[in-house]
Amino acid sequence: MQSALFTHNELELLESQVGNSSLMGITISNHIDQVDAYMRLPLEVPGHGEAGGYEHNRHKQNYKYMYMAGNLFSVTKEKKYASFVIELLSLYADKYLTFGFHVQKNTNPTGRLFHQILNEHCWLLFSSLAYSCVSNEMTDDQRGHVESQLFEPMLDMFTVKYGHDFDRIHNHGIWAVAAVGICGLVLGKREYLEKAVYGQDNNGTGGFLAQLSKLYSPAGYYIEGPYYHRYAIYPTCVFAEILHRHMPEIAIYEYKDGVIGRTVKALLATAYPNGKFPALNDASRSMGVTDAGVQVAVSVLSKHYGCDENIVGMAEIQGEVWLHSCGLALSDEHQKAKDNNAIVTPYWPSIELNEGAEGDKGAQGFMRLKGFDGDITQLNMNYGQHGMGHGHFDTLGITFFNRDQEVLNEYGFARWVNVEPKFGGRYLDENKSYARQTIAHNAVTIDQQTQNDFSVEKADSVHGIPHFFIDDAEDCIGISAYANDHYDNVGMQRSAFLLKDERFEAPLLVDLFRLKADANHTYDYSHQYTGQIVRTNFSYDTYSELEPLGSDNGYQHLWKLASGKAEDCALVSWLQGNAYYSWIGTSSNSNGEVIFTSVGAADPSFNLRDQSSFILRSQGETTLFASVLETHGYFNEEFEQSTNARGQVTGVKVIGHDDIGSVVEITTNNNVFTLMVSNQLDCTKETTHQVKFAGVEYNWTGFYSLDMSASEGDK
Amino acid sequence: MQSALFTHNELELLESQVGNSSLMGITISNHIDQVDAYMRLPLEVPGHGEAGGYEHNRHKQNYKYMYMAGNLFSVTKEKKYASFVIELLSLYADKYLTFGFHVQKNTNPTGRLFHQILNEHCWLLFSSLAYSCVSNEMTDDQRGHVESQLFEPMLDMFTVKYGHDFDRIHNHGIWAVAAVGICGLVLGKREYLEKAVYGQDNNGTGGFLAQLSKLYSPAGYYIEGPYYHRYAIYPTCVFAEILHRHMPEIAIYEYKDGVIGRTVKALLATAYPNGKFPALNDASRSMGVTDAGVQVAVSVLSKHYGCDENIVGMAEIQGEVWLHSCGLALSDEHQKAKDNNAIVTPYWPSIELNEGAEGDKGAQGFMRLKGFDGDITQLNMNYGQHGMGHGHFDTLGITFFNRDQEVLNEYGFARWVNVEPKFGGRYLDENKSYARQTIAHNAVTIDQQTQNDFSVEKADSVHGIPHFFIDDAEDCIGISAYANDHYDNVGMQRSAFLLKDERFEAPLLVDLFRLKADANHTYDYSHQYTGQIVRTNFSYDTYSELEPLGSDNGYQHLWKLASGKAEDCALVSWLQGNAYYSWIGTSSNSNGEVIFTSVGAADPSFNLRDQSSFILRSQGETTLFASVLETHGYFNEEFEQSTNARGQVTGVKVIGHDDIGSVVEITTNNNVFTLMVSNQLDCTKETTHQVKFAGVEYNWTGFYSLDMSASEGDK
Repeated sequence: MQSALFTHNELELLESQVGNSSLMGITISNHIDQVDAYMRLPLEVPGHGEAGGYEHNRHKQNYKYMYMAGNLFSVTKEKKYASFVIELLSLYADKYLTFGFHVQKNTNPTGRLFHQILNEHCWLLFSSLAYSCVSNEMTDDQRGHVESQLFEPMLDMFTVKYGHDFDRIHNHGIWAVAAVGICGLVLGKREYLEKAVYGQDNNGTGGFLAQLSKLYSPAGYYIEGPYYHRYAIYPTCVFAEILHRHMPEIAIYEYKDGVIGRTVKALLATAYPNGKFPALNDASRSMGVTDAGVQVAVSVLSKHYGCDENIVGMAEIQGEVWLHSCGLALSDEHQKAKDNNAIVTPYWPSIELNEGAEGDKGAQGFMRLKGFDGDITQLNMNYGQHGMGHGHFDTLGITFFNRDQEVLNEYGFARWVNVEPKFGGRYLDENKSYARQTIAHNAVTIDQQTQNDFSVEKADSVHGIPHFFIDDAEDCIGISAYANDHYDNVGMQRSAFLLKDERFEAPLLVDLFRLKADANHTYDYSHQYTGQIVRTNFSYDTYSELEPLGSDNGYQHLWKLASGKAEDCALVSWLQGNAYYSWIGTSSNSNGEVIFTSVGAADPSFNLRDQSSFILRSQGETTLFASVLETHGYFNEEFEQSTNARGQVTGVKVIGHDDIGSVVEITTNNNVFTLMVSNQLDCTKETTHQVKFAGVEYNWTGFYSLDMSASEGDK
Repeated sequence: MQSALFTHNELELLESQVGNSSLMGITISNHIDQVDAYMRLPLEVPGHGEAGGYEHNRHKQNYKYMYMAGNLFSVTKEKKYASFVIELLSLYADKYLTFGFHVQKNTNPTGRLFHQILNEHCWLLFSSLAYSCVSNEMTDDQRGHVESQLFEPMLDMFTVKYGHDFDRIHNHGIWAVAAVGICGLVLGKREYLEKAVYGQDNNGTGGFLAQLSKLYSPAGYYIEGPYYHRYAIYPTCVFAEILHRHMPEIAIYEYKDGVIGRTVKALLATAYPNGKFPALNDASRSMGVTDAGVQVAVSVLSKHYGCDENIVGMAEIQGEVWLHSCGLALSDEHQKAKDNNAIVTPYWPSIELNEGAEGDKGAQGFMRLKGFDGDITQLNMNYGQHGMGHGHFDTLGITFFNRDQEVLNEYGFARWVNVEPKFGGRYLDENKSYARQTIAHNAVTIDQQTQNDFSVEKADSVHGIPHFFIDDAEDCIGISAYANDHYDNVGMQRSAFLLKDERFEAPLLVDLFRLKADANHTYDYSHQYTGQIVRTNFSYDTYSELEPLGSDNGYQHLWKLASGKAEDCALVSWLQGNAYYSWIGTSSNSNGEVIFTSVGAADPSFNLRDQSSFILRSQGETTLFASVLETHGYFNEEFEQSTNARGQVTGVKVIGHDDIGSVVEITTNNNVFTLMVSNQLDCTKETTHQVKFAGVEYNWTGFYSLDMSASEGDK
């Protein structure tokens, strides 16, 4: 058949880009360099090896370069690229059925090439596309050999041997249906394409359309978080483009009100200003928009859903486009913007992404604010679902980013991807014992227990409850949500704000975490930070011997480095990179203790990375924590510069809180901010609030109110 | 007077560069942007403040921008630059004598502007140069005011009040004489210039010429190491250029066979391939060739000692030149190279820099080798002097760099420069208690004691003894040296080699550390590394509680994380950045223990940075440690790539060692290297060696011999 992803006319347009300085020209040139370098190596189809080891990587490279070579043959017509694909596919066909199945080492079914069929799905998808580019150059015998000894046995394995898994709704499932559908199309076996679209039994309980409906929420959020989202988006977009061309009757890009476009936008909207994805759930801290799957997604988005300056800015960061007519459309838009000096850094608006197939299972909040200096501050808050097997027990957890770095960190997964001596890059024991536990996050851990008793089943059955998400205020935008089903008999509400004022170099993070309980509990309000402690406003003890902070639920991995009694409010100031951060926090109880920890205890194989935290521990019944995180100053070790190493905020005080609302006072060197926040779930913009604490009455309308009129002198 | 550093003709040439895309054009344009931004702030001459605090930084900025503005006025003739300098100098003159002297907090004498007169010297130097550019624009009254109320009192303070310090040979002394000399010249008071050149008493016991003779060794090395060298080089070069113009009779650039050019070259030759200086002695780990002083030095070098492709490559890294005719000469060379596409990354040859005024106090070895992939490996070894008050007790210590990162680290100083809440950026207590101790380095610590009992006096009275420095061999280059006066009754010899062979991705570091003793000792062979432990070939215990490794000499700051018995040879493999490193080490005793540590114990103010180390501990009398450090593989978390996570070297074995020589065998997957090294101090290239170990005779001529003929199969 003709290349599955190109028309003759499109190929002519792509060919005209060869040698061009456009993004597409650069893409083609980069691909030529890479493929030519790989083709200089001898062909090799290795046997079984360790996960993450040489053989594993070689098979991955083989399919990657076959796919690229197939495209290059289609575009440049250079025979050497076709020959490479044909010879390598033939070698696979010689050997494939001589390989037995890998020995199974975890719950994933094994393939003949890889230790888990997920990788074999990837192999099939890209190799099928490569085959579609070169099959016209092959003899009947060659095609027969490759189809009968390689592709057909693979199709059979995925739909028969592992047929029971084929309809499972999961990020792996998208790879499975896309691979089988594309291979079926390329082999002229439409029955596989039908299965791939409508499920094993052609009734819509499985297949691509069901996956699209169930995996992505109405807002486009993917339940396992951005790291898995960017992995699922690759086959989603490639298969969508196949269906757009070969099953136009589905109108895939309009399906479910354009869910594909929506989910790509949702993915991009989760990214930090530097292009990295927040490491929600089991995720790498370094995955970002330059990932190949995200490149394809941005090209598809631009072609089928319209381009804008954020998308062009994203392409600029990516530096390449999808080698496809979708990518060409984006490359043209990019070139136009470049010629007009109109390329800007993407600034995605704040967005609340609902969760669940119906959008009623809580949400993820992504809030952004540009400071006076143009720097973008981003606050993420999780008040959605747990995230299945890869979920972390961190509902109401937050992360915070500015000045090109994550400041309140997600730890992400405990895993060294593809590092063969580290358990083949699979998830390590410490992923369960530490990374997924509540205490590993920027959250409150109650009585040193993890949310939902670390039960995935329990956690998957509950979710957070959105309270408000207000991103259109002038000086103070905020998110608030509840999580009432995560600890027995304790309700939780977190309200986090970005406060912009000329007194501060950057927006402040103001955070109110309320715990509602009838009995006495220990609350650990934890903050994962990176860098060097610069100063505190309380004295603390360090220890001549270190002990773990606890014995279970992640605490066994924390060395207790130091602790001190927090006076009215505790200040912890640290230096991270070029910026100073000062955190001032308090609780409505007066028994606060600040504990400094570092990760590394009970880690017999040095599997855990360094991570520092400080915890404000408080004991009581119903309790409100309040804190402010201020970004200030500048440090440059190389040029020996340091300015404003101390911040402006001098205190934070809980005036009072009840089921109507919370009132908090923030003091700076020369004024006082009073923040009043609704604690009523049924609150609307019109709801009036009246509370009285220590004889003073506070009134406001709507979700919250910031009073910055009172200066210290006025009081 | 006319600007002290420019002739009329030179200024015309510089003016013609305005708006040009040459390095000089870029420099001028950058300076205009920076000065214009600073001039938009109100003028301010603050009173006393904390070290590293706002006032301190403001005074520093004031002189920096006055100097830049003075130059810009000279070049562009724009009056606003002259006005800025004149107004700010006048403001200083109004206030200077109203400020008392700072309260003295350490051993440094205090000034009226700064907490130590070093900073006030800098202020005077740059402000005098600024004054020389604008004084023709001032009225007699203005000049009289500035001279009598500001400059003359400063000259008086430095030569009378602190006159006893003026002739002290020290990096501070260079700033003192340069500042006083330049100010004297500018004020037309030649007597100060004479003092500055020949010393307080004009007899050569002090002054610039004495400083040049005594501070820099014949090879050009500066005793306190590159960090202080780059600081001393700034006034050295500026004052030299002044003398070149205003006391040509000295022929300063020819002085002592061109010591100025030699010392600039020596400084540049210490830098790592990424332009950072090794943090020898009390030093920052981030100081590099982009420092303003090094910019001036490179421009001076190029003009007065000839330019070459390494110097042009350095200017390319620096991105600017000195705004001066010296810088213009370099800018022109750079432009020529750029037009010819002939700009290359600097690759400085290996160099042994002798120490001491006569060059007979040991040396510092800097060895470089380019790998097959073009990556530069650098090995530094310290077998010179101690380094006075900033010296570390690390004779025979090494550092190792490749793939754009330091692999065996120098910790550098315990200090947060200019960070006002961290003791004003001054040296912290931990600088003595940890950073300067032997165990903080890549060296051998004997009986948990620091070299020379941590006595600066003792340490300054001894030095290392060079054995060989061979950088012209094909496959194996090496350094060897002794340190026999650093521990009582123990002689030390270290021989370190870079071994290049097609079997390895990068040159191997092969390290032999021999301890010669008649009594039993404990030897701690320590390695400071960064990153994640990937695997070991021995089992080790981790602890449920952590204790410090010792109670003194730096050991009190090390948490003992884990330890295990080393079998024949111990393998420790780790991941740093994108590269894997595997270290295999052994000792001639069979009682080896490997200890893993991290820094942080006994650190009550979180002053210490993270630093990991592993130590091979061995007990015995005369002992030889042998180890190999292999660089291999590639890891990219973002793109989830990992290759060659295991290295090729499988073992290292001490065959034998005596006072004639040491013989070591290195085993790889498919062959054996035998390395024979001379232990005879009086060895020459012709000396023949014969040793017999376990019945086998080994013969070689010269300092060392590498036999790679025997493959495993042959044996």
